[in-house]
Amino acid sequence: MADISLHTPYSAADVAAWDMETDIVIIGFGATGACAAIEAKQSGADVKLFERNSGSGGASGLSGGEIYLGGNGGTEVQRAAGFEDTTEDFAAYLKMAGGPCADDAKCDLYAQEAVNHFNWLKAQGVPYRGNYMAGKIIEPMDDTTLIWSGSEAAAPFYKSAKPAPRGHVIQHMGWGGGRPLVDILEAKARALGVDVIVDARAMALIKDADKIVGAIFRIDNKPVFVKARKGVVLATGGFVMNEEMRRKYCPDTFKINDPIGDKDDGTGINLGLSAGGDAIHMEQFFTTCPWTIPESHAKGVFVNIQGQRFINEDCYHGRVSRTAVDQPGDRVYLLLDSAHFEQPPEFARMTIAGTGNDWEEVERELEMAEGTLSRTMAFYNEHARAGRDPLFDKQKPILTPLDQGPFVALELHFQNSYFSFFTLGGLKTSTDGEVLDRAGAPIPGLFAAGRCTSGLPAWGHGYSSGMSLADCTFFGRQAGRKAAQG
Amino acid sequence: MADISLHTPYSAADVAAWDMETDIVIIGFGATGACAAIEAKQSGADVKLFERNSGSGGASGLSGGEIYLGGNGGTEVQRAAGFEDTTEDFAAYLKMAGGPCADDAKCDLYAQEAVNHFNWLKAQGVPYRGNYMAGKIIEPMDDTTLIWSGSEAAAPFYKSAKPAPRGHVIQHMGWGGGRPLVDILEAKARALGVDVIVDARAMALIKDADKIVGAIFRIDNKPVFVKARKGVVLATGGFVMNEEMRRKYCPDTFKINDPIGDKDDGTGINLGLSAGGDAIHMEQFFTTCPWTIPESHAKGVFVNIQGQRFINEDCYHGRVSRTAVDQPGDRVYLLLDSAHFEQPPEFARMTIAGTGNDWEEVERELEMAEGTLSRTMAFYNEHARAGRDPLFDKQKPILTPLDQGPFVALELHFQNSYFSFFTLGGLKTSTDGEVLDRAGAPIPGLFAAGRCTSGLPAWGHGYSSGMSLADCTFFGRQAGRKAAQG
Repeated sequence: MADISLHTPYSAADVAAWDMETDIVIIGFGATGACAAIEAKQSGADVKLFERNSGSGGASGLSGGEIYLGGNGGTEVQRAAGFEDTTEDFAAYLKMAGGPCADDAKCDLYAQEAVNHFNWLKAQGVPYRGNYMAGKIIEPMDDTTLIWSGSEAAAPFYKSAKPAPRGHVIQHMGWGGGRPLVDILEAKARALGVDVIVDARAMALIKDADKIVGAIFRIDNKPVFVKARKGVVLATGGFVMNEEMRRKYCPDTFKINDPIGDKDDGTGINLGLSAGGDAIHMEQFFTTCPWTIPESHAKGVFVNIQGQRFINEDCYHGRVSRTAVDQPGDRVYLLLDSAHFEQPPEFARMTIAGTGNDWEEVERELEMAEGTLSRTMAFYNEHARAGRDPLFDKQKPILTPLDQGPFVALELHFQNSYFSFFTLGGLKTSTDGEVLDRAGAPIPGLFAAGRCTSGLPAWGHGYSSGMSLADCTFFGRQAGRKAAQG
Repeated sequence: MADISLHTPYSAADVAAWDMETDIVIIGFGATGACAAIEAKQSGADVKLFERNSGSGGASGLSGGEIYLGGNGGTEVQRAAGFEDTTEDFAAYLKMAGGPCADDAKCDLYAQEAVNHFNWLKAQGVPYRGNYMAGKIIEPMDDTTLIWSGSEAAAPFYKSAKPAPRGHVIQHMGWGGGRPLVDILEAKARALGVDVIVDARAMALIKDADKIVGAIFRIDNKPVFVKARKGVVLATGGFVMNEEMRRKYCPDTFKINDPIGDKDDGTGINLGLSAGGDAIHMEQFFTTCPWTIPESHAKGVFVNIQGQRFINEDCYHGRVSRTAVDQPGDRVYLLLDSAHFEQPPEFARMTIAGTGNDWEEVERELEMAEGTLSRTMAFYNEHARAGRDPLFDKQKPILTPLDQGPFVALELHFQNSYFSFFTLGGLKTSTDGEVLDRAGAPIPGLFAAGRCTSGLPAWGHGYSSGMSLADCTFFGRQAGRKAAQG
């Protein structure tokens, strides 16, 4: 038998016997794989879905089950809450959120199709309560549907795209809606007759001339050769759990310590590269430290170790956190007054680094030079009282003076506090989920979606909650449908 | 004839007839290719060196001809100037300069071998006057040898590595020593009998089973098949001139406008990837706006559009410039008083954005909020008078009060000012210049060095002048020697 490697496609000519055969092989049973399977099956294809774990889930199953949706005047939930959301505003926001890494074609298509996608999700059985909750929340603690989940109302985004809340959360009490979301999609896929094979780890793609025609899986400790008559869909997630890949492609993640993933070790990216695919924006990552819990903390002010503010704190908590990690040194401080301070949640591992009856005392406790933090806060408060933030254009009502002592500085330490993160870089794909080669042409028989690709959530500084599941579910569907045309 | 592509190795079985044959094919005739050729030839191999232009040069020929050298107690030039430079200090600096992207093995080997490398360069005929010039200069205007060319004496570097000047410049009046440097290396290579073929553009590698056995060049509008019995060395430079690659792998470079390169379009990186190579740290780039000309400007203070300082301005001009490009908005300001201001050079395209009899007036002219820039400068001057920089640990004598009016703010606009840049990411190679595959194993017959690889200058924020030519010349030699063992 020839060598089997993630890094080199196995030649079809070397396959002694096919152990299984189907139209479409899907690798990975998170939301991406499930959506690809549903569409492929509904397009009339035979589908086998392989998962390394003993059941579905992946990183999607660990998520909040929130999907970023809008455009076309708004979803019914947005409209019921009084928000109109044009396709143009939605696309403009998605492109700003993608920053220098934005894939304009994906942003435009998704902005156009997201309302249809919402209706599709409901048709699969995903329940939505349909209500809206104002405020600055990471995920609803109840079963609310619609929340502000990004930087829509904050500078610079609000200037180029009319703000609307777009985070649509599955009806589910409390955090963790990702698990029931995947369960529903799994049930649908199984009901349609998708053949699910678990405990099956992908080892290599199989190539015949220029076309990907199957994959090899390790099942029961043996290589199993699976023929895919129409195509293979990679849906294996990012590479946050692969330290060697992070070291090579995304080394800034070593500043922080809490990867979120479920065996997201870059398998799909490596398989795609082995077939001649192109991995782009590999240095990009999402991170957040949940500093907006309790919600009163959302009104806090951040300073770096120089005592300088560095962002408008009314934008998305992850954008603030990602920018925090860019600051010099190994920590930043969240400043709060007694009107806003409450004990932060233990899991965030933030500590009280300084307190004082005035900001000068906090400054001394942090061993900052006189006239740094204290001056920053005097300036901030003076302007906040007038309803303005001349430095970063933070907006009311989050913009509010912090002048009721005593005062507190919470330390967000990059290594010690809870900075969760996952990778955003991956395979370059078309809007149909075709894996593109380095010259930009589709690789016959190979498709991918979700975090093994670079998609809607392309830029760490622009991420908004729900963007990754939006990308996984929508472009997973695209990939499944396109593969079925094979 | 089968398709010929940069992105897919051509099969040796499809070669109808070899047009040329040699032991080693080198692609690219900058300093890297020349050094590889010299070593390969001196190791007893037949060498053919192919260059796309009509003559040697590449990006090396556009450079200052400065090479970063030290360690082992210092080069003779360092020692004559009174600088001891241990291998440990040199290695420590190189690793800090590589930041999260550092290749420790390359740093250690180079720190150990750099003095020998200096002697080798002299033995090839590269002249050095041997004198030292103090001060903060980009390149000497005369034919001086040794200058401070990095951030050695600045925070945080000085704390972990004893500072020494390490920029060794070829004896050559004024800027532009890169051209004579390449000329000397070319003369040596030709004298040794290296066969140089110009006007030859690389089109594809040729592969036989797992080994690279040659390359295809376009010469006189025809594909020419060249057999390499021992190996192919890629020495084609980075990808700064390839906008499509920059968009995919290094999009932050679109903030700025002045690529430095000579057809550096990523050819070598693409060829290496086509053979299964691994491209790493592709988002990294060097940039500088020459703000330390005239030298009195090195004592200036930078602020971002919020009026905040963002770095100790005594570090390398490129480190300051790279950090400047990270700041919010599209510009930063260099603040000077009348004791230090002179007209900046026209080519830098910096403009006077504001003037005033005090810093408050400058602040108003820049339309910054009251108490921002003026407060930053009051704080800076107060501490500079006491010889301290509590924020960024800038060191005397560059740390000096700027309190003699009138005052000036020079604008460094990312799009309009001269921010030159080149890319640093590229193929992952061993210390012997072997191109490594994604599993970390050498690809038989394929070698690379210089800016088509990720080497000593791996991190834009840590670059120091002379690091790229150090990497090109030293690891070019390594690749040539290793290839000759083939």
